[in-house]
Amino acid sequence: MEDEKLEKLQMSRHSLSHVLAKAVKNIFGNDVKLAIGPAIDNGFYYDFDMPSITPDVFDKIEKEMRNIINSNQEFRREEVSRAKALEMFKDEPYKKELINDLPEGETISVYYLGDDFVDLCRGPHVENTSKLQSYAYKISRVSGAYWKGDEHNKMLQRIYVYAFADKKQLADYVAQIEEAKKRDHNKIGRELEYFTTVDYIGQGLPIMLPKGAKTIQIMQRFVEDEEEKRGYLLTKTPFMSKNDLFKISGHWDHYKDSMFILGDEEKDKEVFCLRPMTCPFQYQVYLNKLRSYRDLPMRLAETSTLFRNEASGECHGLIRVRQFTISEGHLMVRPDQLEDEFKGCLDLATFMLKTVGLYEDVSFRFSKWDENNKEKYIGSKEEWERVQGEMRRILNDLGINYFEADGEAAFYGPKLDIQIKNVHGKEDTIITIQIDFQIAERFGMFYTDENGEKKLPYIIHRTSLGCYERTLAYLLEKYAGALPLWLSAEQIKVLNISDSSAEYAKEINNKLLVNGFRSFVDLRNEKIGYKIREAVTSKIPYMIIVGDGEKEKGTISVRGRGNENIADISLEDFIARLKKEIEEKK
Amino acid sequence: MEDEKLEKLQMSRHSLSHVLAKAVKNIFGNDVKLAIGPAIDNGFYYDFDMPSITPDVFDKIEKEMRNIINSNQEFRREEVSRAKALEMFKDEPYKKELINDLPEGETISVYYLGDDFVDLCRGPHVENTSKLQSYAYKISRVSGAYWKGDEHNKMLQRIYVYAFADKKQLADYVAQIEEAKKRDHNKIGRELEYFTTVDYIGQGLPIMLPKGAKTIQIMQRFVEDEEEKRGYLLTKTPFMSKNDLFKISGHWDHYKDSMFILGDEEKDKEVFCLRPMTCPFQYQVYLNKLRSYRDLPMRLAETSTLFRNEASGECHGLIRVRQFTISEGHLMVRPDQLEDEFKGCLDLATFMLKTVGLYEDVSFRFSKWDENNKEKYIGSKEEWERVQGEMRRILNDLGINYFEADGEAAFYGPKLDIQIKNVHGKEDTIITIQIDFQIAERFGMFYTDENGEKKLPYIIHRTSLGCYERTLAYLLEKYAGALPLWLSAEQIKVLNISDSSAEYAKEINNKLLVNGFRSFVDLRNEKIGYKIREAVTSKIPYMIIVGDGEKEKGTISVRGRGNENIADISLEDFIARLKKEIEEKK
Repeated sequence: MEDEKLEKLQMSRHSLSHVLAKAVKNIFGNDVKLAIGPAIDNGFYYDFDMPSITPDVFDKIEKEMRNIINSNQEFRREEVSRAKALEMFKDEPYKKELINDLPEGETISVYYLGDDFVDLCRGPHVENTSKLQSYAYKISRVSGAYWKGDEHNKMLQRIYVYAFADKKQLADYVAQIEEAKKRDHNKIGRELEYFTTVDYIGQGLPIMLPKGAKTIQIMQRFVEDEEEKRGYLLTKTPFMSKNDLFKISGHWDHYKDSMFILGDEEKDKEVFCLRPMTCPFQYQVYLNKLRSYRDLPMRLAETSTLFRNEASGECHGLIRVRQFTISEGHLMVRPDQLEDEFKGCLDLATFMLKTVGLYEDVSFRFSKWDENNKEKYIGSKEEWERVQGEMRRILNDLGINYFEADGEAAFYGPKLDIQIKNVHGKEDTIITIQIDFQIAERFGMFYTDENGEKKLPYIIHRTSLGCYERTLAYLLEKYAGALPLWLSAEQIKVLNISDSSAEYAKEINNKLLVNGFRSFVDLRNEKIGYKIREAVTSKIPYMIIVGDGEKEKGTISVRGRGNENIADISLEDFIARLKKEIEEKK
Repeated sequence: MEDEKLEKLQMSRHSLSHVLAKAVKNIFGNDVKLAIGPAIDNGFYYDFDMPSITPDVFDKIEKEMRNIINSNQEFRREEVSRAKALEMFKDEPYKKELINDLPEGETISVYYLGDDFVDLCRGPHVENTSKLQSYAYKISRVSGAYWKGDEHNKMLQRIYVYAFADKKQLADYVAQIEEAKKRDHNKIGRELEYFTTVDYIGQGLPIMLPKGAKTIQIMQRFVEDEEEKRGYLLTKTPFMSKNDLFKISGHWDHYKDSMFILGDEEKDKEVFCLRPMTCPFQYQVYLNKLRSYRDLPMRLAETSTLFRNEASGECHGLIRVRQFTISEGHLMVRPDQLEDEFKGCLDLATFMLKTVGLYEDVSFRFSKWDENNKEKYIGSKEEWERVQGEMRRILNDLGINYFEADGEAAFYGPKLDIQIKNVHGKEDTIITIQIDFQIAERFGMFYTDENGEKKLPYIIHRTSLGCYERTLAYLLEKYAGALPLWLSAEQIKVLNISDSSAEYAKEINNKLLVNGFRSFVDLRNEKIGYKIREAVTSKIPYMIIVGDGEKEKGTISVRGRGNENIADISLEDFIARLKKEIEEKK
């Protein structure tokens, strides 16, 4: 949306929030105290100090808002002195607090809406509610919110309202939200039994149920095998270390707050940290021997578990967690190898994203340091500019359509972040490729060049498919739970129509198992319609349905989850088809 | 060895320790103060307060011992009063301390050796050094040892001596020790670049180098695939939890000292524990739904990482570590399924041990509770006896040749432990299968039986190949580093004789890679003898050596690490042979 249009929309949303406040006062009386009511991305909210309300009054409030809008009330701005403002809002404690918070000399403005409602506000607003006629709005929910976001303050009632320029846009947005909710991995991932969480274990520590564990195993093996083909050596390093290691790496100074720490330097002989990344552990593999220019590039990869001390409230499904598994790799490269190796990493990441089907959903972010925030980074301005210049050159060479972000670099170097949005529009990094020009020196990771001189390598930090939990979440959302056949933990379910075809169903299932498929058989004495519905709900790719007819002919009937039906096919033909589909990873 | 013979040997060893003490005093004078000198498994030691000595005096001491033995000196016992004893040992502060430590009324005996040496001692001894003539002994080493093992006390010099009934037995033992040292995984595992450790990371936290990581990956996939074939479902559960979980499971009360704990109940809102076992996490998978008798047995398995808070000094190579990876599994079974499922677990463990080649080295321990140490266990005597009886019946049914051990059960039930010894003779558990009749109730893990009634399952806790780090250690020791082909991270090395065969060597290597072998090529401009020696030292299963002759004929020459040579074979034939060897897992 162009800036001007967006500005107008936000002004209208904010004007609607005054309409909401007036409507609530009209309905619930003057005991309701007003806090604040800003415009947000999809509408606006308003915080009230009032008894808690329930959805059954939403309709009444919406109607009262429509009454106000239809009576063409004027928004009228007035500038007032602090004393006048305090007098005007003497019965509104939150407004008084806001007035007192304003710096000395600041203009104080209020907005009347009609003659009988006034709110402290900087504005701007539409001139008259007639300008809001065409807008469409809908109260989405009410939730508790602490005054000023501080849990020591009083809990207020926050009324959220979707608001758009017309009915069509509102309807589209609501439909999109409904669709997103249906696809939300945090909902379907639980319903389809990919994962669960348990209060007494803790937030951000998901339990992968057999389906989730199996899909992650498939991805992990696929990644490990592809990396091996591309010349990576596998490592397996410990998940914890004495804090001495992190003092050398710089994490103790730059990353401590995000780490889980065991023990206390004041009291304990040894303080351990759970690792938030694999880097300094994997460097030990390089450091195990003297290295020469002939040993480079050295490409190391590991299926690694990492721990980040996220606040409980920040945790979300499989996307923001306290423990996760990721293929982390580090490439120690000579300067003359940097470009090729960087390209190799991007090629691998691209291959992975295309294979699982997420490539079309990502964007590329060139994450740079922030010159005005030097304490977050190590190294000199000259070095940062040189390496960022090098990275920009490589990205341009590759013709990547990237956007730039200041202040998003790692503390040791710039990054190419591959970004993806979840169903709710929240963006996160799925894959990162980083150029580190500093840490090798801290660990003394030299190599001997052709002339016998000690040199420092660049280190490329990278992942090839991101962290498996997060990637699974995006896959569940993308496919609304119907994962491609090769990634499906349960590929086929064999259903018998009646007891007389039970043995035949078992036989079919066993042949599929012998052929390496993840097949299951449902022999329960239930109606076939019930068994089919259950299999459909679980998004199983293929159902094989067999009754006496199939048994006699020695065939099977297949139903795909896309409602495709194949009657009376031979098992051999179907197996060939399955093998092709898996081979193609579609 | 029969008890009587062993008793005689230990008495002779202890007598020899007096001979050592006398010899040391003869050589180093009366400033040497005596502490204690017991017989041990392979000889004896004696602790002296004296300036530190070095191996160059061992020969002199051994000769002086021979002089004493050859002069047929008598061992003469005398019982003395406490006052007399204190007077006799007035210049021996450690002996005086020992005398003062003796309870009132205890008989105090001393042993003369000849007329000019006396030691405080309970005995017994041989009558005369002539009885020691045929014995063979050899000082093995000297090390520091705190008086009474307390680090606050003075550091003494402990002289260790191997001692056996004759020269042959001593020579055999020394040869065996030398062989053990050569096979010690903690030595060859580092030399062959399977793993390393790093001071600033910490003890018991090995870094698996590419060879170690690869062999573990191979074992892990083999185990996961075999378990899947046997009807196990894969899970993936978090490595940490709030301590609330461990309070329910009983680990907080029975196992806390062995756990890594983050935070402090007094201060922190949440206290987390790193998990020492997978059980209570995997139970959550069972608990995710209501279960019926039809859902059982439910077999869950996970490639799990566990953490145990071992003291730094207890850590040893890959055998005793603070973090390890293991296939942990739990089977929830109905009482009528217990026997079959237990047998299935043992069958899987046996299959695994036979496949990797360790089966012939293990023994079976039936680990029971200790009735006299009830506070270590939960549950009543009746239940323990019933379940132990059940387990004994199953073991007898299977015809297993087991030994029994009291006080080795888990706190919740009896175990079948499969035991193995390392090269130094130290025994540890490699695989365990446990019957748990108690924890299901704590977590409310019910199922509904045929009559709709709530019932509790038994839980079998088991592993199929033990922890991978430990199993790798035993494999390295068993095969002296020369792992079977299928487990070898580096299977083949292609060596070119001269530059003119470099391209041909690369071509051969690429064909091997395409065929899925782990092949490497050494094109360095070094003498072929040097390259072969290096490959032999690294215990690589096969070297392919190619020169102009092979290039012209389009053949290869192969050298196996067992010194087997095959000249001029076609690559295709060799590939067929390799595939067979890998298939057979020999």
